[in-house]
Amino acid sequence: MRLSRGLVPTLKETPAEAQITSHRLMLRAGLVRQTSAGIYAWLPLGYRVLRNIERIVREEQDAAGAQELLMPTIQPAELWRESGRYEDYGKEMLRIRDRHEREMLYGPTNEEMITDLMRQSVKSYRELPQILYHIQWKFRDEVRPRFGVMRGREFLMKDAYSFDLDYAGAVVSYRKMMLAYMRTFQRLGLKAIPMVADTGPIGGDLSHEFIILAPTGESQVYYNAAFEEIDYSSDAFSHASAEDLQRFFGLMTSQYAATDEKHDIDAWGKVAPDRRREGRGIEVGHIFYFGTKYSEPMGFRVAGPDGKPAAAEMGSYGIGVSRLVGAVIEASHDADGIVWPDSVAPFKAALLNLKRGDAACDAICEDVCARLGADHVLYDDRDERAGVKFADADLMGHPWQIVVGPRGAANGRVELKRRAGGQREELSVEDALARVG
Amino acid sequence: MRLSRGLVPTLKETPAEAQITSHRLMLRAGLVRQTSAGIYAWLPLGYRVLRNIERIVREEQDAAGAQELLMPTIQPAELWRESGRYEDYGKEMLRIRDRHEREMLYGPTNEEMITDLMRQSVKSYRELPQILYHIQWKFRDEVRPRFGVMRGREFLMKDAYSFDLDYAGAVVSYRKMMLAYMRTFQRLGLKAIPMVADTGPIGGDLSHEFIILAPTGESQVYYNAAFEEIDYSSDAFSHASAEDLQRFFGLMTSQYAATDEKHDIDAWGKVAPDRRREGRGIEVGHIFYFGTKYSEPMGFRVAGPDGKPAAAEMGSYGIGVSRLVGAVIEASHDADGIVWPDSVAPFKAALLNLKRGDAACDAICEDVCARLGADHVLYDDRDERAGVKFADADLMGHPWQIVVGPRGAANGRVELKRRAGGQREELSVEDALARVG
Repeated sequence: MRLSRGLVPTLKETPAEAQITSHRLMLRAGLVRQTSAGIYAWLPLGYRVLRNIERIVREEQDAAGAQELLMPTIQPAELWRESGRYEDYGKEMLRIRDRHEREMLYGPTNEEMITDLMRQSVKSYRELPQILYHIQWKFRDEVRPRFGVMRGREFLMKDAYSFDLDYAGAVVSYRKMMLAYMRTFQRLGLKAIPMVADTGPIGGDLSHEFIILAPTGESQVYYNAAFEEIDYSSDAFSHASAEDLQRFFGLMTSQYAATDEKHDIDAWGKVAPDRRREGRGIEVGHIFYFGTKYSEPMGFRVAGPDGKPAAAEMGSYGIGVSRLVGAVIEASHDADGIVWPDSVAPFKAALLNLKRGDAACDAICEDVCARLGADHVLYDDRDERAGVKFADADLMGHPWQIVVGPRGAANGRVELKRRAGGQREELSVEDALARVG
Repeated sequence: MRLSRGLVPTLKETPAEAQITSHRLMLRAGLVRQTSAGIYAWLPLGYRVLRNIERIVREEQDAAGAQELLMPTIQPAELWRESGRYEDYGKEMLRIRDRHEREMLYGPTNEEMITDLMRQSVKSYRELPQILYHIQWKFRDEVRPRFGVMRGREFLMKDAYSFDLDYAGAVVSYRKMMLAYMRTFQRLGLKAIPMVADTGPIGGDLSHEFIILAPTGESQVYYNAAFEEIDYSSDAFSHASAEDLQRFFGLMTSQYAATDEKHDIDAWGKVAPDRRREGRGIEVGHIFYFGTKYSEPMGFRVAGPDGKPAAAEMGSYGIGVSRLVGAVIEASHDADGIVWPDSVAPFKAALLNLKRGDAACDAICEDVCARLGADHVLYDDRDERAGVKFADADLMGHPWQIVVGPRGAANGRVELKRRAGGQREELSVEDALARVG
């Protein structure tokens, strides 16, 4: 992609409306623009990040055996009357009347609709377990939307729903999703800690929030160092048997982890001092077992092995996909701008031509573009001073910067900078491309 | 994917509400379910097709140099007041009031919003031309939604917008998009004919609808055989220069093509008899040059080379992505069901285990699943009669069927059926897998 002909409106000044780091940096780096209060357009660079995150979330849901579908954004009010949530939901639900005065709403979540789809088709325990998920835009009409995409009104969420014949099955589904979440966050370059969350009237211990560590996070967290040391991409987690899952779940729930709201000084005291870790955190996901809360009132029953009908046991599993774009930035930035983890960066490399019109500089840049491919390099071919290009490259945060100046170019050499850490090296074009990979 | 644990609710009976072939087959093959009038949930198989089409559309937009972004579904009414369309749009626009009584709407299209985003950032002719596109759900509150996803209320559209300094530039953008469209439809296995469409008050000849041929199409079309003979994937079209584009556009616009509404008997008479083709067609896309219709009232002007500000010249380019799922089925089906083109099929192959519990059958099926990968094969492991499995495989229309019965399995052989044409062969597992690819 060529910056001179790209919609990448970087800003030198920090916009006054932005209160938190990620919001400031997303506006300054030209990732998003607000189109209404709490509603954003994802400009080309921001949308590339959003799609990279979405892809990793999807791959891990698929690996866990979940099936992807897509439910619409607009739902009929009747479904929500069946579960009793239509009135409960209050003003955060965006209620709509269509031209025939039918009551509709912009879905804030999908328990009712997925239960309806399942009850139409699934009649026997033989067809369970199933986990279904979709990645779809949701709307919550927040009274005071703020913090950019971290708390927008129209937001992208991955929500999964599990259906099992009995509690034992639901526990296995829950553990699978918990593992998929830890793998997802690790691939995004994040450190995530699962924290026991309220289960409300359902009870039990099957509700967890996932907090990712970020210096600018909203809440204080206390946790055992164990969480930082696990490699969820290892074989035991890639092909997890029921025993692997049980061991994993035991590990996740036996180590100390709490936000300051629930911090337990006594339990904390029992953690070996050299294993105690503190930090700031941001909530990015929530998983929840809720039994027959929806299947019972909505009449989704399957015939069990004994022929008797039983309401399906359900759980739901959410990840804030658009929120994660902000969360990754909160976790990974410095004074100069964003520092994208390789897995989610909009481009592998920024290519800075310091002297457009210099034959050697132009030739090397065109060569690099052709060899890396338009999909992997952002070519700063703008008619701007070197200082502006350096500053914008740091601000936008691509993992690598390939700097092409006339002196080096005459000898076929470029400067390669790693955004994280800032190391610079002078290299041949060949070696620089090999390093960027 | 295993059918026994998949949400793939095939139907033996044709649902009464379905009036056209694609709607009937999409319901019967378990691709979609209606959740409100004209609003559909895309079940796993249907969603796979939708995503395949979306991917091909995206790849060809990217290849044409368009930048992808994502605009939100909910738009503020003010933008549409600026262009004067807010009142004009009538009841097809889904109007919404949020909790603060602000007037919003569910976007039916995005000319206003993209013009707003561009005018905030782009100030000089040096930043043009640009083409931007997004693939996003739209809503049109049709008074009588029907024909399934062919005319739904919530539908997925790819809409692109071009911005040029002058008319000559706008023409080049228009030709690029026309070529991208022809390449897209060909990759989808469709025969598409561009037809001159009304330009309304703008005038000129830069408005085309794309009609794809389907025996069950809504309108009669007359065209020159030339359109069927061009390979748009050839090199001249893959790296089209300005001259290539001009030649391409000349070809597209010089050959006879018309729907019955505009059929011109005199012009038709001049087509050599052996080059005359007739058929039925379905509209799946529309491209349109509209000059400064939005940029002028909304004040999007760029400084030209002479320093004088000029309103940007614009065009818009739409493809009905969800509509295409129906259109592909209308173009490719038989009495037994859908016949998916390879490029959009939900899975490469259906795998039919005719005797579950037979050790040889089960072993071969597990082997085929492992080697093709869960993403490429739909394994019919249900506890159903062979006849049901054969019928459902034909109905769902995967390009290949791998049939595993006890007699063949004992000798390590399977039957391979090609859905299009129906040829069957008995082969070793090895040879069958090589054929499926």
